[in-house]
Amino acid sequence: MKLSDIHAARDRIAGRVERTPCARSTTLSAIVGAQVYLKFENHQFTASFKERGALNCLLMLTGEERRRGVIAMSAGNHAQALACHGSRLGVPACIVMPRSTPNVKVQQTRVFGAEVHLEGTTFEETLAYTEDLARARGLTLVHPFDDERVIAGQGTVGLEILEQAPDVDAIIVPVGGGGLIGGVALAVKSTAPAVEVSGVQVERFSAAHDRFHGRGSEPGPSATVAEGIAVKSPGRKTWPLIEAHADNLFVVGETEVEQAIFTLLEIEKTVAEGAGAAALAALTANAERYRGRKVVLVLSGGNVDMMILSSVLQRGLVRSHRLARLDVEIPDVPGALAELTAVLGRLDSNIVDIVHQRTFGGSSVRATVVELVLQMRGEEQVEQVLAALGEQGYEATFRSGTNLSA
Amino acid sequence: MKLSDIHAARDRIAGRVERTPCARSTTLSAIVGAQVYLKFENHQFTASFKERGALNCLLMLTGEERRRGVIAMSAGNHAQALACHGSRLGVPACIVMPRSTPNVKVQQTRVFGAEVHLEGTTFEETLAYTEDLARARGLTLVHPFDDERVIAGQGTVGLEILEQAPDVDAIIVPVGGGGLIGGVALAVKSTAPAVEVSGVQVERFSAAHDRFHGRGSEPGPSATVAEGIAVKSPGRKTWPLIEAHADNLFVVGETEVEQAIFTLLEIEKTVAEGAGAAALAALTANAERYRGRKVVLVLSGGNVDMMILSSVLQRGLVRSHRLARLDVEIPDVPGALAELTAVLGRLDSNIVDIVHQRTFGGSSVRATVVELVLQMRGEEQVEQVLAALGEQGYEATFRSGTNLSA
Repeated sequence: MKLSDIHAARDRIAGRVERTPCARSTTLSAIVGAQVYLKFENHQFTASFKERGALNCLLMLTGEERRRGVIAMSAGNHAQALACHGSRLGVPACIVMPRSTPNVKVQQTRVFGAEVHLEGTTFEETLAYTEDLARARGLTLVHPFDDERVIAGQGTVGLEILEQAPDVDAIIVPVGGGGLIGGVALAVKSTAPAVEVSGVQVERFSAAHDRFHGRGSEPGPSATVAEGIAVKSPGRKTWPLIEAHADNLFVVGETEVEQAIFTLLEIEKTVAEGAGAAALAALTANAERYRGRKVVLVLSGGNVDMMILSSVLQRGLVRSHRLARLDVEIPDVPGALAELTAVLGRLDSNIVDIVHQRTFGGSSVRATVVELVLQMRGEEQVEQVLAALGEQGYEATFRSGTNLSA
Repeated sequence: MKLSDIHAARDRIAGRVERTPCARSTTLSAIVGAQVYLKFENHQFTASFKERGALNCLLMLTGEERRRGVIAMSAGNHAQALACHGSRLGVPACIVMPRSTPNVKVQQTRVFGAEVHLEGTTFEETLAYTEDLARARGLTLVHPFDDERVIAGQGTVGLEILEQAPDVDAIIVPVGGGGLIGGVALAVKSTAPAVEVSGVQVERFSAAHDRFHGRGSEPGPSATVAEGIAVKSPGRKTWPLIEAHADNLFVVGETEVEQAIFTLLEIEKTVAEGAGAAALAALTANAERYRGRKVVLVLSGGNVDMMILSSVLQRGLVRSHRLARLDVEIPDVPGALAELTAVLGRLDSNIVDIVHQRTFGGSSVRATVVELVLQMRGEEQVEQVLAALGEQGYEATFRSGTNLSA
């Protein structure tokens, strides 16, 4: 693969995908102490950068291949990207997803007219089915990352960044199978070798990171908020690009990614999926390294389930003490709860949830423990409320942890 | 007020506020059956259009007025806008908020170096304090909407829309005190009279709408998700502009606004506050009127409390049956709950919340009712689960309503 492949991809897909904004964030810059720019790939029509690679591949097919159609194994952004651009170009798209795929994702892909097959309970079964179907029907398999046409398409993100932020010092991109970083690192390091290109993975799927740092990987628990980069290992075509061109690979934890999603919503008013927020998580965790430098974070996508987003919000409120859980012991007599809630009202703390439980807990049969979830303005108010309750003779305990409810 | 005032404002504030994008939404266009464009005023630095008017006013002060400083009564976007641009220009800003203002809003304004006073428990008390302080210190009062300099600044949104979407047929903007619609309607109707300019209010604060349609207003309940347009009546300067230039005023309900916030998050990946989403709510409720036409919705702001946003998300999931509450009666014997939850697992429905309550409910002392909150894929799956539970001999009841929890 060469830089010219990426230039060719850029010309090929021009006008058919968004040239997404690359904008400075004043507030994030102040928080991190760097000049922070965001590349909004979540503004693509299907809300992820995957359109670039899928479209580049579709446009490189022969007439005969186009007529027969394409096939891919994906339940995520690659499926939507291929289905969407297949439909726009009149190339039939067949998408194979594991049986366990949520119906929402099936519908999001069917809406573009793609033929969706739900097959296999393991990765290997789904892959075998996909390959069989491709052979049987003569379909062109479009790999989500391990295909030079796809990598070249993703690399156009790097070319755009160099044009939009010409004096950039560093770029951070999320890494799953390595298609995005492979293309971006090749594009950037071949054009502006001084620009640092780093990738970020999540702890639970850190194979590329571990290999980059010469370590073995143990397979961890399989659930992550960044499902877009939940890939077991980098590809045969992407790994050599990462090894040759990437400057560093970071790893971030689940909580850091959640916090980054929360920050992007609250400060930037933008929805990023877990993978899309990972670059901000990496920057925040490595702020010292980037101090004063101009760094572009690639917000790779915005497809996050609204149920997950709601949980991320609530857990973020808990972390920042804007939701707090207190246990308060009160005497088991009529009027006791009214008195407690009146005190909380005067302290300007709104009650979100309350469980008044008398069988378990409580220091005596004449006392009962009330479990409260309260809206707070932050740590300071939590401490004020605890102190005020203490002064009023209540025994109140703050319970940390984010397991409030859904 | 004349069009030239708005042109002058545009030249004055150019380069000091964002020229926000005005972009087509393919998906919203398909849903509504119109050509839908969004004007992203939530991309302003303080996340609302209010910067335009506040800045225009600041830039029109005399040297002496600048030196003495400005004062405003606001707990919302106007306060942040004035504080931010006051700070950038070196004009001292004093902001008066009601005593009940949440600390978060105080902090968001103090961060720009503004002097914040918390005074008054009623509107009248706060206003009187503000006017007294302005007189005592010789500060210039910057009204949030009823000031021609402010109206002219807000009107620049209209000029930008005409440049960015030259063949626009209609524009919808949220209406509180009328500064935005006053300026936009004057700008647009003086330049391109054929373009329809409509406003939208919420049912609970519909004074301008009611007066426009020749009706009296009754004060309703005071809480709305669209607090940015919770204004009791239009201004003395804004009302004549609305009367002379607006083509129509709509009114929308709380649920419609909530749904619009949800849709903008899920589809557009953007955070709109209630007022900011109101234009989409009006369009959706009046889709027939706009069919086939090119309509620009002004997303006026994005400052929504994360706690509110989390609730809006959960309530949206409930409305779309992606969260469902079922009551299921089970025999009160060991293993009964295990059997029920196994059935639900096979039906691919995730349990979010469960209350197993035996004292109340249940058809006999040997039975108990389990209250479940389940994750679903939509109405169809809810019906499938109810049918399947019925076939297994369970008595299951779907409970509608959005009062799930916080």
